[in-house]
Amino acid sequence: MLHSNLNINDLDHLEFAGVDAVEMAKKYGTPLYLMDEDRIRDRCREYIRCMHTYLGEASHPLFASKACSFKQMYRIAKEEGMYIDVVSGGELHTAVSVDFPADRIFFHGNYKSPAEIRYSMEVGLGYIVVDNPDELHLVDELAGEMGIRQKILLRITPGVDAHTNKKINTGLVDSKFGATIETGHAEMIVQEALSCKNVELKGFHCHVGSQIFTATPFMEATDIMIAFCKSILNRYGFTAEILNLGGGLGVRYIKSDPTLNIDVVVRQISEELVRICKIMKYPQPAIFLEPGRSIVADSGITMYTVGSIKQITDDICYVAIDGGMTDNPRYTLYQAEHTFLLANRMSAPVDFKATIAGRCCESGDVLKERAWIPKPMVGDNIATLVTGAYNYSMASNYNRIPRAPVVMIRNKEDYVAVKRENYDDLLRNDV
Amino acid sequence: MLHSNLNINDLDHLEFAGVDAVEMAKKYGTPLYLMDEDRIRDRCREYIRCMHTYLGEASHPLFASKACSFKQMYRIAKEEGMYIDVVSGGELHTAVSVDFPADRIFFHGNYKSPAEIRYSMEVGLGYIVVDNPDELHLVDELAGEMGIRQKILLRITPGVDAHTNKKINTGLVDSKFGATIETGHAEMIVQEALSCKNVELKGFHCHVGSQIFTATPFMEATDIMIAFCKSILNRYGFTAEILNLGGGLGVRYIKSDPTLNIDVVVRQISEELVRICKIMKYPQPAIFLEPGRSIVADSGITMYTVGSIKQITDDICYVAIDGGMTDNPRYTLYQAEHTFLLANRMSAPVDFKATIAGRCCESGDVLKERAWIPKPMVGDNIATLVTGAYNYSMASNYNRIPRAPVVMIRNKEDYVAVKRENYDDLLRNDV
Repeated sequence: MLHSNLNINDLDHLEFAGVDAVEMAKKYGTPLYLMDEDRIRDRCREYIRCMHTYLGEASHPLFASKACSFKQMYRIAKEEGMYIDVVSGGELHTAVSVDFPADRIFFHGNYKSPAEIRYSMEVGLGYIVVDNPDELHLVDELAGEMGIRQKILLRITPGVDAHTNKKINTGLVDSKFGATIETGHAEMIVQEALSCKNVELKGFHCHVGSQIFTATPFMEATDIMIAFCKSILNRYGFTAEILNLGGGLGVRYIKSDPTLNIDVVVRQISEELVRICKIMKYPQPAIFLEPGRSIVADSGITMYTVGSIKQITDDICYVAIDGGMTDNPRYTLYQAEHTFLLANRMSAPVDFKATIAGRCCESGDVLKERAWIPKPMVGDNIATLVTGAYNYSMASNYNRIPRAPVVMIRNKEDYVAVKRENYDDLLRNDV
Repeated sequence: MLHSNLNINDLDHLEFAGVDAVEMAKKYGTPLYLMDEDRIRDRCREYIRCMHTYLGEASHPLFASKACSFKQMYRIAKEEGMYIDVVSGGELHTAVSVDFPADRIFFHGNYKSPAEIRYSMEVGLGYIVVDNPDELHLVDELAGEMGIRQKILLRITPGVDAHTNKKINTGLVDSKFGATIETGHAEMIVQEALSCKNVELKGFHCHVGSQIFTATPFMEATDIMIAFCKSILNRYGFTAEILNLGGGLGVRYIKSDPTLNIDVVVRQISEELVRICKIMKYPQPAIFLEPGRSIVADSGITMYTVGSIKQITDDICYVAIDGGMTDNPRYTLYQAEHTFLLANRMSAPVDFKATIAGRCCESGDVLKERAWIPKPMVGDNIATLVTGAYNYSMASNYNRIPRAPVVMIRNKEDYVAVKRENYDDLLRNDV
């Protein structure tokens, strides 16, 4: 099986996190997100252990909460001692609603409204990751109004290409994020930040891409960023306490994807950091990483029910399920690959080629073209694996389809983390 | 200007539907959907007039409500005497919540759950557009349980290529929708429908694509469908009362797009229908069309506020706005083109090339690359034109960004049709 939390039980059903996934589909209905709390916690612990071991106690993983944002995720992150990042007032609000310690929150993104910045200062947010000069001056002004000195990092674009999907590749010069080193904008924003009275510059942030399985892009970014830090130290006497290398660690969606070894990646980053800091004679900063996908993606699956099977030609068969781009827009957006299982007949021969069609009234609502699965029947349950990241958080009500619930599994016990939307939820803001 | 509901007022502001769009942005905040109720009503009347004039009183336009679905839209459609189609229980629920006459509703889509079909029968829905044999038998069974005879159309795939975007091209053989004529599946499902006790077959439905500006694809579909009807009549003695030719009529998003002339398209369809029915000796059926986009798209604009301007190289500038793929996913999904205006300085020279970047923490969240607009400043309002269709209805809470409100303008008076989501709305289903 693709991941260790997947199994086949005596009923020939898919077992996920130790529970019968088909049983869960019956109990809660479909579509249904199932999430493995124990695995999420294991991942948090692994990141914390590796970062503390190799990079020191001041180094921390931040859960990139945009990957999966609802109250219970912030509770879990809090209990595990994670830091988090948020990218909007809504994520921040969700985190503080479960008393996530505000000083462990980083506020990210290329646009933050004045109201959001004020809100973040009111709750005592740890760090604003400032994206651009316009934002820097806004943060400085609002911090002045609030009578505080706001800790910030500056988002720097190092120009590293992590060779990933164009849409999720953020380290290049042509990026909406950050200030670029090679154009001189990075130095300019540092200079401006150091002259702002109401902000306290603590270091730098960069992000090199997504679905990265090796330390190499992070090591390259480390070299570039430490060289940048050194030049800033030389010119402005500023020493970065924090270097946040961002997120992007990869997840195994299909069998041909590699498996991420967090320990190896963090160790190699630490070795490179030690090496480059020594060469550059730069005091080693605390390192932050921002795993989101790699904390939650393989801790989630989605259960669907087959509504119809339409064999058009020998080669073309559409299997219509009761979800699709509304609960998982990743195929329509990125042609992202997923693995599909016939959850209620796991040992049936995988000899059938089916296009898994979503239920939206739109031809593009497909989850996979020509997937190999066992021949399904109406009423069967199809499971999409590795849907813990960027599924619930990206879900929409397109076609006025209510959003699916999130059921968490902890120690083989299931509980509702996010309730299913009902029709009246859809009408709540309609006048 | 692109459409007749756009103007420039004395303050050099964009005027939309007779109101100052910048004033609206101040009053309601941004991002903000503005919609022109008068124009929506004009479009409904134009479709009804043309269809009744050229195709007879039994022929009707259906508003394809997935394009823009909230209570007030169904009220408008009801008041104008439109029929509608819905594609889910949620759309149906919204329509019946404002007492939309159920007998004027068609239920579409490639997946309908048993609960949704039951619900539609309970409210006395007019027609179920049955997509496939599995669904046919389900409808027959549930109608039997309810003790009713459900009127249905069958969705047929005619194999017409409307030469449009692949993702929204639905008339071909390799389609998740309908039963294909050339494979024999269409005839098979007719035969099955005629043998079902609890359904009453009233005719056929087909859909040839999107963004169509001429009658040609509809005329081709008419020819194919009447030939199909005739062969069914010959073999099974069944005469179709209704031929629903679907939607897909186009909208002018950018200057180089053509302008749709509803009158000409409907008239040409009617001429072709008369001609082919005469040749085929087939009694002329009532015709239904399903305009969605062409009813609402150019009756909507979206107002944003500029948060930052980042000039990276002479050629690359990112202008960050307070919305993006969460309120308008059409560029990230389809690379759809839109027109952008600097709404608060309309006569400023259009001499600046900017990438309009959304606020989501995702590189792909861009509304347009290298758009020509006047050089913006922080705080300016950017308007995206022609966002009345597939914007609000496709909006998500990705990054936990609350959804924007819909403000309607009727006779130059503004009113809220959908309220802005607040942070507590986001938490409502979180446990």
